[in-house]
Amino acid sequence: MKIPPVKGTRDFYPAQMARRNGIIDGWKKVSIRNGFEEYDGPIFEYLTMYQIKSGQEIVEQLFSLQDRGGRELAIRPEITPTLARMVNQTINSLPRPIKWFAVPRLCRAERPQKGRLREFFQWNIDIIGENLGQADAEVIFTALDYLRMVGLTSKDIQAKISSRKLLAAVLTDIGIPPEKLDSLYAVLDKKAKLPAEAFEAVLAEQVPDRNQAKKVLDFMALDAIGQVREVAGTNETIMDAVRDVEKIFAMLEWMGVGEYCRFDPSVVRGLAYYTGMVFEVHDIAGELRAICGGGRYDNLLRDFGGPPIPATGMGMGDVVLEILLQERGLLEKQAIKPPLEYFVTFAEQLLGSDMYRLAAAIRSRGHSANFSYRQGGLSKQLKDATAQGARKCIIIGQEYVERRQLVIKDMATGVQESIDVEQFLSRLSS
Amino acid sequence: MKIPPVKGTRDFYPAQMARRNGIIDGWKKVSIRNGFEEYDGPIFEYLTMYQIKSGQEIVEQLFSLQDRGGRELAIRPEITPTLARMVNQTINSLPRPIKWFAVPRLCRAERPQKGRLREFFQWNIDIIGENLGQADAEVIFTALDYLRMVGLTSKDIQAKISSRKLLAAVLTDIGIPPEKLDSLYAVLDKKAKLPAEAFEAVLAEQVPDRNQAKKVLDFMALDAIGQVREVAGTNETIMDAVRDVEKIFAMLEWMGVGEYCRFDPSVVRGLAYYTGMVFEVHDIAGELRAICGGGRYDNLLRDFGGPPIPATGMGMGDVVLEILLQERGLLEKQAIKPPLEYFVTFAEQLLGSDMYRLAAAIRSRGHSANFSYRQGGLSKQLKDATAQGARKCIIIGQEYVERRQLVIKDMATGVQESIDVEQFLSRLSS
Repeated sequence: MKIPPVKGTRDFYPAQMARRNGIIDGWKKVSIRNGFEEYDGPIFEYLTMYQIKSGQEIVEQLFSLQDRGGRELAIRPEITPTLARMVNQTINSLPRPIKWFAVPRLCRAERPQKGRLREFFQWNIDIIGENLGQADAEVIFTALDYLRMVGLTSKDIQAKISSRKLLAAVLTDIGIPPEKLDSLYAVLDKKAKLPAEAFEAVLAEQVPDRNQAKKVLDFMALDAIGQVREVAGTNETIMDAVRDVEKIFAMLEWMGVGEYCRFDPSVVRGLAYYTGMVFEVHDIAGELRAICGGGRYDNLLRDFGGPPIPATGMGMGDVVLEILLQERGLLEKQAIKPPLEYFVTFAEQLLGSDMYRLAAAIRSRGHSANFSYRQGGLSKQLKDATAQGARKCIIIGQEYVERRQLVIKDMATGVQESIDVEQFLSRLSS
Repeated sequence: MKIPPVKGTRDFYPAQMARRNGIIDGWKKVSIRNGFEEYDGPIFEYLTMYQIKSGQEIVEQLFSLQDRGGRELAIRPEITPTLARMVNQTINSLPRPIKWFAVPRLCRAERPQKGRLREFFQWNIDIIGENLGQADAEVIFTALDYLRMVGLTSKDIQAKISSRKLLAAVLTDIGIPPEKLDSLYAVLDKKAKLPAEAFEAVLAEQVPDRNQAKKVLDFMALDAIGQVREVAGTNETIMDAVRDVEKIFAMLEWMGVGEYCRFDPSVVRGLAYYTGMVFEVHDIAGELRAICGGGRYDNLLRDFGGPPIPATGMGMGDVVLEILLQERGLLEKQAIKPPLEYFVTFAEQLLGSDMYRLAAAIRSRGHSANFSYRQGGLSKQLKDATAQGARKCIIIGQEYVERRQLVIKDMATGVQESIDVEQFLSRLSS
């Protein structure tokens, strides 16, 4: 009986696993150096949790299941609802701001295509308990700190930054009624994904007034926050949102990632829960989906039954990132593949038990060691060592019988040295 | 709207995450030093994959789901079927023996109780392509190498080792027909979990002949492989299995973990697919479920549509292990919680942007740094540094304005030093 893997999932053989480990290790390293602490939640939650605020697209893509008691569960499609639940449960004992990161495995029942799988890993960072632009800038900086570390330059990628607060102020100023904003966001988010004519057609459905629609399009075409300042006139709500965005840009400039960042009001984000800054990082060639995205979500904790605590964060999936790193020749550099340090062999039949003893002693000192299970001749064992890519080969032979000397062969250079077994082991320990 | 977590799952707040990371890191470290390479598969597979060979208990505990095409899937309750599928897919290009490990997240829809949750992590190691006892011993050694590394002694834990091959030979010798063996294994596996009388009652259902049942009980009460040798007489099938077990014990002795190991024919294992060596590690006090278990499964790859390739392996869950480590006072030692190295503050209002610059520079050199988002006075910032447990505090103050000198304060000792900012950064880089 031969059963295939499920479409849209990945098998991580050691070579793929080394790349996945490299990416996740990088995410963890950058999170920690930016002062974030790691958390995680369960792989499934109650289905209703995702129906509150996740946005229609995500709800349609849920993998739902039942437990034996008939309760409706779902595999997590994102971790933010879990984060909100966990923070709400312990809000009074947590210091603020809460700076947390996670690298959850997520599942979405979507049609597998380039850059989209049904199962993937997503780096999440969130700052909770702080409504200042500094926290927003910190989120964007941390994402860029990682992307810069792996070798992506401002010629490869760009952070497109906008603000839902600014967008709301502008749309209100244009005359869009407040109750239409949420559905309009979902439409505006499609701008980059649709041809211009198609986008204008769906926009016309939401904003039938041609003059208003033109103003929306004009705003979305701006490419510097200063231009908004010019058109805002005396509208203080808009100006307030403009100053917030400017603060974020100033801090990103100070922190040395200004060259990666651009104001782009066409970035809206699909999720329903954003309330302030929103951003996406894209490849400059524009060939891929967003590499990461996020923003401020000041109402989510309250919507999940907690107190009204501001929050901001972002998520970066591994699928698009891996494609981009591969295209730029940066993926293999990330791979973490620990080498096999020693291969223990014996030249004299009676010394088999010493081989086991020595291999165990090397391992217990924290170094990797293998040996041949089949006790063939020395040349067969050395062949196994080569096949397994061992760095060094240890030969237990005549010298060992006579005076406890091991022969250590460097497999790259072929150079051999003799060393007393105790001396060798104490060298490993130090 | 307040939604609780699903019962039997865990929230990993940073303190719990540090412990989980510590345990998983230890597993990975020991796997690598024993020459294993990491792999992983998807969190869900086709439901049918688990119905082939996983044993009735596991099949009853599956979390099943459907994809949008109506295909029946299940969250993985174990990773061995995935391993068999992955190896079979690429068997011709893989070097042998295959020594692989994984640390999958697994889910089982069981009633949560002490040592059993509905979601857990399980360390798996497997050696595929080798039918020698050396591979079996290597699996047991690797499990013990980890348990010994974290501080568990032979006074805390014991590896109970037996053999399905031996058991089959003995049961056949007693007169049990071959077609009854599989269902009898499931009963014998209950011996340690039931009171003696209850066990004898269920045994009597499977083996109505009192004389035969007594022989089964007598065999299961043996506690040294030498005793089997005595009772085996001239039965060569039994003697062959005895010699296999003896080889495993000899190798474990040579590798320095002999004191942890004991022959125990009452260890049978619940899973249907074992064919040779079986083992479990238990706490000596006998208060907990098995810490780990495994064995040889020479037919599984063939049952999954592949060639007949021998294999042996084991799994160790994190739930029982964590309870044991906690009881022995060894859990907190495992926790990996990277400290916050630097907290950057500024004493002069105009220097806020330098604070961001410096924090970014420290981070990009691979060190962790935080700062206060709210630009309060220095004493408020130092309070934040203490609250976040920073090791060192950097003060950007008057000395910095005058001659680019930073003040670095050791938060544990209170000792302060002044250093030129460039010198400080170049010290970080080296």
